[in-house]
Amino acid sequence: MTDITRADGRAVDQLRPITIERGWSAHAEGSALISFGGTKVLCTASFTNGVPRWLTGKGKGWVTAEYAMLPRATNSRNDRESIKGRVGGRTHEISRLIGRALRAVVDTKALGENTIVIDCDVLQADGGTRTAAITGAYVALADAIAWGKQKKFIAQRSEVLIDSVAAVSVGIIDGEPMLDLAYVEDVRAETDMNVVVTGRGLFVEVQGTAEGAPFDKRELDALLELGVNGCGELRELQAAALAVTDAV
Amino acid sequence: MTDITRADGRAVDQLRPITIERGWSAHAEGSALISFGGTKVLCTASFTNGVPRWLTGKGKGWVTAEYAMLPRATNSRNDRESIKGRVGGRTHEISRLIGRALRAVVDTKALGENTIVIDCDVLQADGGTRTAAITGAYVALADAIAWGKQKKFIAQRSEVLIDSVAAVSVGIIDGEPMLDLAYVEDVRAETDMNVVVTGRGLFVEVQGTAEGAPFDKRELDALLELGVNGCGELRELQAAALAVTDAV
Amino acid sequence: MTDITRADGRAVDQLRPITIERGWSAHAEGSALISFGGTKVLCTASFTNGVPRWLTGKGKGWVTAEYAMLPRATNSRNDRESIKGRVGGRTHEISRLIGRALRAVVDTKALGENTIVIDCDVLQADGGTRTAAITGAYVALADAIAWGKQKKFIAQRSEVLIDSVAAVSVGIIDGEPMLDLAYVEDVRAETDMNVVVTGRGLFVEVQGTAEGAPFDKRELDALLELGVNGCGELRELQAAALAVTDAV
Amino acid sequence: MTDITRADGRAVDQLRPITIERGWSAHAEGSALISFGGTKVLCTASFTNGVPRWLTGKGKGWVTAEYAMLPRATNSRNDRESIKGRVGGRTHEISRLIGRALRAVVDTKALGENTIVIDCDVLQADGGTRTAAITGAYVALADAIAWGKQKKFIAQRSEVLIDSVAAVSVGIIDGEPMLDLAYVEDVRAETDMNVVVTGRGLFVEVQGTAEGAPFDKRELDALLELGVNGCGELRELQAAALAVTDAV
Amino acid sequence: MTDITRADGRAVDQLRPITIERGWSAHAEGSALISFGGTKVLCTASFTNGVPRWLTGKGKGWVTAEYAMLPRATNSRNDRESIKGRVGGRTHEISRLIGRALRAVVDTKALGENTIVIDCDVLQADGGTRTAAITGAYVALADAIAWGKQKKFIAQRSEVLIDSVAAVSVGIIDGEPMLDLAYVEDVRAETDMNVVVTGRGLFVEVQGTAEGAPFDKRELDALLELGVNGCGELRELQAAALAVTDAV
Amino acid sequence: MTDITRADGRAVDQLRPITIERGWSAHAEGSALISFGGTKVLCTASFTNGVPRWLTGKGKGWVTAEYAMLPRATNSRNDRESIKGRVGGRTHEISRLIGRALRAVVDTKALGENTIVIDCDVLQADGGTRTAAITGAYVALADAIAWGKQKKFIAQRSEVLIDSVAAVSVGIIDGEPMLDLAYVEDVRAETDMNVVVTGRGLFVEVQGTAEGAPFDKRELDALLELGVNGCGELRELQAAALAVTDAV
Repeated sequence: MTDITRADGRAVDQLRPITIERGWSAHAEGSALISFGGTKVLCTASFTNGVPRWLTGKGKGWVTAEYAMLPRATNSRNDRESIKGRVGGRTHEISRLIGRALRAVVDTKALGENTIVIDCDVLQADGGTRTAAITGAYVALADAIAWGKQKKFIAQRSEVLIDSVAAVSVGIIDGEPMLDLAYVEDVRAETDMNVVVTGRGLFVEVQGTAEGAPFDKRELDALLELGVNGCGELRELQAAALAVTDAV
Repeated sequence: MTDITRADGRAVDQLRPITIERGWSAHAEGSALISFGGTKVLCTASFTNGVPRWLTGKGKGWVTAEYAMLPRATNSRNDRESIKGRVGGRTHEISRLIGRALRAVVDTKALGENTIVIDCDVLQADGGTRTAAITGAYVALADAIAWGKQKKFIAQRSEVLIDSVAAVSVGIIDGEPMLDLAYVEDVRAETDMNVVVTGRGLFVEVQGTAEGAPFDKRELDALLELGVNGCGELRELQAAALAVTDAV
Repeated sequence: MTDITRADGRAVDQLRPITIERGWSAHAEGSALISFGGTKVLCTASFTNGVPRWLTGKGKGWVTAEYAMLPRATNSRNDRESIKGRVGGRTHEISRLIGRALRAVVDTKALGENTIVIDCDVLQADGGTRTAAITGAYVALADAIAWGKQKKFIAQRSEVLIDSVAAVSVGIIDGEPMLDLAYVEDVRAETDMNVVVTGRGLFVEVQGTAEGAPFDKRELDALLELGVNGCGELRELQAAALAVTDAV
Repeated sequence: MTDITRADGRAVDQLRPITIERGWSAHAEGSALISFGGTKVLCTASFTNGVPRWLTGKGKGWVTAEYAMLPRATNSRNDRESIKGRVGGRTHEISRLIGRALRAVVDTKALGENTIVIDCDVLQADGGTRTAAITGAYVALADAIAWGKQKKFIAQRSEVLIDSVAAVSVGIIDGEPMLDLAYVEDVRAETDMNVVVTGRGLFVEVQGTAEGAPFDKRELDALLELGVNGCGELRELQAAALAVTDAV
Repeated sequence: MTDITRADGRAVDQLRPITIERGWSAHAEGSALISFGGTKVLCTASFTNGVPRWLTGKGKGWVTAEYAMLPRATNSRNDRESIKGRVGGRTHEISRLIGRALRAVVDTKALGENTIVIDCDVLQADGGTRTAAITGAYVALADAIAWGKQKKFIAQRSEVLIDSVAAVSVGIIDGEPMLDLAYVEDVRAETDMNVVVTGRGLFVEVQGTAEGAPFDKRELDALLELGVNGCGELRELQAAALAVTDAV
Repeated sequence: MTDITRADGRAVDQLRPITIERGWSAHAEGSALISFGGTKVLCTASFTNGVPRWLTGKGKGWVTAEYAMLPRATNSRNDRESIKGRVGGRTHEISRLIGRALRAVVDTKALGENTIVIDCDVLQADGGTRTAAITGAYVALADAIAWGKQKKFIAQRSEVLIDSVAAVSVGIIDGEPMLDLAYVEDVRAETDMNVVVTGRGLFVEVQGTAEGAPFDKRELDALLELGVNGCGELRELQAAALAVTDAV
């Protein structure tokens, strides 16, 4: 890495300040208010005993996610999707990504016939909302599973979580690969990539897009390395948040 | 008032603990995170220079509001209105109420051809979400108007706000009129009323509904008195929040 | 009351000419075409044996209402809500109001597991459409309940209706409280209020809104008194319409 | 024709009692409440100076129609299309038919850049609603054109209506061709046909459908003859209604 | 017939080149890609064992159809109905027409409790898309029924198809009746008619519309004769396509 | 590569038979019917002079894409999105991907203020529909640009296309990386990846998802190599199709 400094003084391989307020919601079975710098996402996990009809009787559970943004989470106001009467393509795409990321670390047989819905609502956006959402959603999910065990909907010894999962954005700006882009960086990036990585360091999802010039294999490798390292740091922060025993 | 005590230990004429975090949002021109006990509403005011087409050229501004609830703001999860593809009747009704309440204290000529949209998103619900929304929205509105003056979209000496406005719920439970109902009280109330009152103590809106037995004039008078007094206390808390000079 | 006369020559405390054509519809189990001056609302009550799934097995019935307006009921044409693909906020709000008003006088246990849907379609609008709708809907409801008894879906001796219900608008114009506002009055009113009152003179709903200047307690009291008296007159007209024995 | 008598005592070539209440609506520029026996349709014509954007500057006007049915116009209640959020295929199809029928007798150049929207709302249905709608819509249209001339939006001497238009249903029941089917007849018809005919006796629209067995040329000819004669009678009734000079 | 020649050199009573590619789809139980000149419609028949809930237990099957057009099937691009969020009136009307035409030749008792959905997607449009759709849909339907027999969902000896069905457009251009209008002819036609005729030469549907001047009985008769003859030729082509034994 | 053979006899690094029928549509400014084995996608490019309002006056053009699937393109029938009234998440996501892929090789300044909309309609699906769509869309796009030059909407010497673009799916099945998955392979894949690569061999998009176990860097590298090679072959086929001079 070179010694380029960024607008907010970070090194190219440095995350923004990350905070995780576990148990933020009084009602949800698991919850976390996560911030990646100015990006704040409220993640709540709703546990229901039972599964959707199409899964009934298969002895497996279901985990799904919905992502949304408050109208004034961004710099200028966006119309509500409820008022437009339709969910936009970007919203759908991110909801699906979060759901896949979480299911990659869940053993649905061990979960049993239970459903967990994770809502990720962006209260304030400053780049990287989908990666903050995944990282916070994992914490909410872990608490909802703990709740399910406490309430005996899940057997005490079931290993529902087979790994942890976190995500971070990486990108190339002025030819330089950088970690965890803030909004002002994101709009300037030539290449933008989101990586979703398990606690063991394996890839769940790699989504790289050339916003400007196409990229080559060497650049791709540099981005992946930055992303894997960033997810390693996030894993530690998730573990620290979950280590506090009486959060819920 | 009798000396009945409530589930949370309050007197019948006592508000829940009220907090107003002014300037919660980094992006909005005015904002407040208000809580009435366990009810938390994020109010953001978005200022736009210009007005909708139907108002153009009339020399008047426009103030409107939208109310919504996160899916897990409540004790069990509700489907998102964006996914259902339609905004529910209750949501519409409350959005319209908030807009009317705010417009009652705004001189739209003094506002000039500017638009302010107030978004009231319930992050956590425990009764009285619409009244908390109105009370917080006023603070966000006041800051958005200050922003408009600072940016010279509004003349410095324009008296845009002709009064302040706050709201509170009142209701009759077991025959006893009570102030600021929490959710467990709200579901038991025979009569439920929301009063919207200006800083000078005048009514903007009175909405009383018999949920159980119809009510008589004496009960109505008792509820109105409780409501006016509660709004007086809220007016003081709004003023205190706005007195801090450098919030935005 | 002062001796102010109105555009149509009425005294301030005088209703417009009211007509109730009971049994207007050949198909509905109960129906009434009601007019408050130029406002004409067709109210039909549809009786179904059985209840919605969420009520099944609770031994209780359900009464609900839907309000709508023909596109050219008003002075200029409005687009159809079916074509816009969504029901507007005002429509929803009024439908909910009518439903609550009717349920306030129905003993749902006595109704048994039956559903009555009241449709209130405004054929011509000249102010006070929601209050005419409630007043006419009560007549249609009474006939639908009579039909249900005749068909033995309801026990002959069940006291389903515990009271009657009627509604009227009141408002302050040029400082003067007035009863039953026509459209030209409604648009000029400083304060606009709808009161829903039972046959025994108790309040079911009080909805007062300052359209211009906020109002004080003395004005509120004057409006309520006008409204209660007006509803008393409507109660007599409902009773007269229902006294004719062979309408259905 | 044979001497078969129908359920309501009519001859096979006899219309039901037809009434046309011209000028029923206080607001519309033209209106008629038409009944074909138990079928009652309120037709209102809304006149607007100007045309939709796609027609601007072509020196031509536009006539269009919308058809709808109240939820309890029929024997059992139908859900509102506004609540379903979509207009059904049948509704669309009939709206288009009415619009085409009216445009067939309108000289859009003579109409000038004006728009007339005809709303046909079925208040009560007993078969033949689309044909009653067309027949009544013509009366409303004629009055709206007269209004446009009086208001000088249309030149006094413009011949906007080049002919009159009426419609009627015909069908084959038990092998017998019959005129103007009531609902109980309509459901039994083997072949169902709607004919739209001008005052001069020319066809605007012929829509025949085999509901049961397909039909041959001889049957088709018999149906067409009945339909043309029926439309001739309707033309007389339209002319009589329009002959009263001061209806609007 | 006179010896007028058309833009594409056809005689007035001549069909465009017709091709039927039976079994075009690898997945559908029956399919045909049919072309009437430049009009190309892909018809697929989907067979499902079972019927919609409202038909269950009546011992009858169900046949229905859906028509749609690709956005660039036409000369200029149309927005997708999926994106507009609503199906247009024309689409609905044609879907209903195709369904009725097919059901006219199906014995639903012989079909048994099975459902066949025919999708007619216009890949390229050059006039007469609905008539090409009906003609091709019949071939797809016949193959789906054969499939159902082979799979034993239908008894081998059931006579499900009681006749064949085909359709063609006819119209009057410059006073001359013509068969099978191409798009450039269709837009010029004074009268436009679609006839749906069974293999035995009986009418299932006759839909004639005056696009310009109304038409008289003599013109109607000339159009019907052209249409019946055209459908006779189409019947031969359908039979030839279905005669090839191993298409599916 | 090992010598594993696949269900259809292909080597692990072998594409399915690819065909490109350029100029399939008579109406579109560019078109191609592309097949990757049993996957058939009709790609049409619609050229419009002018740009959406938000781009007006910036001297730049716009390229966008819409993806959809016929209801019976798949093994069992799917409901139409037009009838469901909303576009699904998967559809949105793929439309956005195709648009980004094409824009990556377009110089929008050189395109000038022109808009090209590419419709990719899947007529038959057997895995890899989005990659076939991108590969075919490029051919349609190239022809639409040629058309724009011929019609002088684009300057003759503008270099609108700065590179070509193609896409292919790769995946890991039973631990073995494979190229261009058919549907039966796709459902079994542990990891599924789509790569979009320019003619020069640079990445435009990399989207890898662990459907089963997460994947490591070595596996990712193997997949990328397969994908880049496959796209190289597709580039040759695109070039060959476009080399035929008089296709449009």
